[in-house]
Amino acid sequence: MPDLPSFALIPVIDVVGTFVFAISGTLTAADKKLDPFGASVIAFVTALGGGTLRDLLLNLQPIWMQEERFLVTVFVSVLVTLVFRRDIGRFRRTMFLFDTVGIALFTVLGMEKALRLGVPPLIALVMGVVSAVFGGVVRDILCNEIPLIFRREIYATACLAGGVTYLLMRLAPVPAEVPFGVAVGIIILIRVLAVRLKWAFPNLSAGE
Amino acid sequence: MPDLPSFALIPVIDVVGTFVFAISGTLTAADKKLDPFGASVIAFVTALGGGTLRDLLLNLQPIWMQEERFLVTVFVSVLVTLVFRRDIGRFRRTMFLFDTVGIALFTVLGMEKALRLGVPPLIALVMGVVSAVFGGVVRDILCNEIPLIFRREIYATACLAGGVTYLLMRLAPVPAEVPFGVAVGIIILIRVLAVRLKWAFPNLSAGE
Amino acid sequence: MPDLPSFALIPVIDVVGTFVFAISGTLTAADKKLDPFGASVIAFVTALGGGTLRDLLLNLQPIWMQEERFLVTVFVSVLVTLVFRRDIGRFRRTMFLFDTVGIALFTVLGMEKALRLGVPPLIALVMGVVSAVFGGVVRDILCNEIPLIFRREIYATACLAGGVTYLLMRLAPVPAEVPFGVAVGIIILIRVLAVRLKWAFPNLSAGE
Repeated sequence: MPDLPSFALIPVIDVVGTFVFAISGTLTAADKKLDPFGASVIAFVTALGGGTLRDLLLNLQPIWMQEERFLVTVFVSVLVTLVFRRDIGRFRRTMFLFDTVGIALFTVLGMEKALRLGVPPLIALVMGVVSAVFGGVVRDILCNEIPLIFRREIYATACLAGGVTYLLMRLAPVPAEVPFGVAVGIIILIRVLAVRLKWAFPNLSAGE
Repeated sequence: MPDLPSFALIPVIDVVGTFVFAISGTLTAADKKLDPFGASVIAFVTALGGGTLRDLLLNLQPIWMQEERFLVTVFVSVLVTLVFRRDIGRFRRTMFLFDTVGIALFTVLGMEKALRLGVPPLIALVMGVVSAVFGGVVRDILCNEIPLIFRREIYATACLAGGVTYLLMRLAPVPAEVPFGVAVGIIILIRVLAVRLKWAFPNLSAGE
Repeated sequence: MPDLPSFALIPVIDVVGTFVFAISGTLTAADKKLDPFGASVIAFVTALGGGTLRDLLLNLQPIWMQEERFLVTVFVSVLVTLVFRRDIGRFRRTMFLFDTVGIALFTVLGMEKALRLGVPPLIALVMGVVSAVFGGVVRDILCNEIPLIFRREIYATACLAGGVTYLLMRLAPVPAEVPFGVAVGIIILIRVLAVRLKWAFPNLSAGE
């Protein structure tokens, strides 16, 4: 299988994604009135928790254990967020876009990593979604909340839809960039539409 | 050591146990008014969380990473549970029995797996109990509850009693089926009696 | 690099540290009115959770999986704590001291373990802090609290300060005992002063 040309961008994607996810973790920690140490931990697990679980399940050592740039990125992100906290509200739309692009890329890259290790397709799909959303789940557990994505948002579902598309298109005789681009596009599109149009699954009720 | 003849049944036990534990996870998620995605995640960790932690601690890759039938079983279980939610109340007694047989089998199979890897007996005992009960612990953490088994039930204790029996009987010169059957029987018996007779440990109180 | 002479004491440190951390876990569980099984689990994760996460991230099998003395130590600690619960209040000062010495030693030993495996210095620092404090984090999650160290105490910060000192002094041409002793001393000193003088970071507030 040919290398995806976009793979040259992975170090950039990784760092930008880590930075943006760490902002979201820091803001959640501030909402909970944690101290700066607590905020750093929450930022760290939000940004790197998903990839860490994926790698432990794949029997790999998490990448941030080998290269310090991830840790440094989280630290810089926490500092910047704490300093500019008052102004960050104005960038919520930009942050939403970064976050959306981040989960889209993390989903597909996480899947590709698992597939290359010989993991069956359905499991690779789960690994992709785990890469993208598990950090937010741990963030919410540490902050003593039921994880947000279990309750309200078309979030993981967007990742699932893009992931399935990727699996199917990967079987077709097209250049590797095509399924990659289409899957990322679908995830971004669904997420943006879901927020715009307030799509949500109905919540379950036991006694219904 | 001879293979346990009952080991031919393991794939069946695994799938039935996964199915039943996933029902319990789905029902808990519905009680918490999660959405279908949240319910699927809770079902998954309830069913497979215990074996996953055991395998990570044993430096093995969890079995569900290699074979898609576990994931598919969870998915089918969630679908069936959501569709027949209204009727499932009538089967609580059947489900309790399946659940009890499930933890009994998972305990002994988890111990045997650890023992065969050369893990010391006491640690193997812990691995057996972890296999059986840790999924329920993570389910409760994700749903923002103090894990049920820490508070009320003779549940893990039944597993411990069966596990100790298994360790002791395994030293005796009897066919491998005997300790296996006796240990499973003891776990089921204690759990059923505990629920029937409302056995429980007294809760601790710090100021007592 | 020469072996640290103090390393002959590691089995003693490990067992004493495990014992003291398990007391703290048992007392927390009693405060939450858990049952004896729940108390044992909480004691176990408080005492051994930090080292377990560190070892999983380092791709090692946790040490307590190989040697039963850790499990036995936790069990004895829980028994002793439950029996002498009424009297243990009088020893809070002693326990605080043990706990402080424990996190100091665990931080430096955890770092040294990671450094010897070739982990980069900053990551080794994180591994040291994880060894010392993560057990308490899991204890609080299981008890359905936002982890204490995220909210109030100069605790992890003391470990970080000692860890940074250790990394810097390790570069100097001094015998290995010197950075070891200085780092441990700094952690103990900061923690004791922080509690005496009621040092704390200000909590964050999002709307500030």
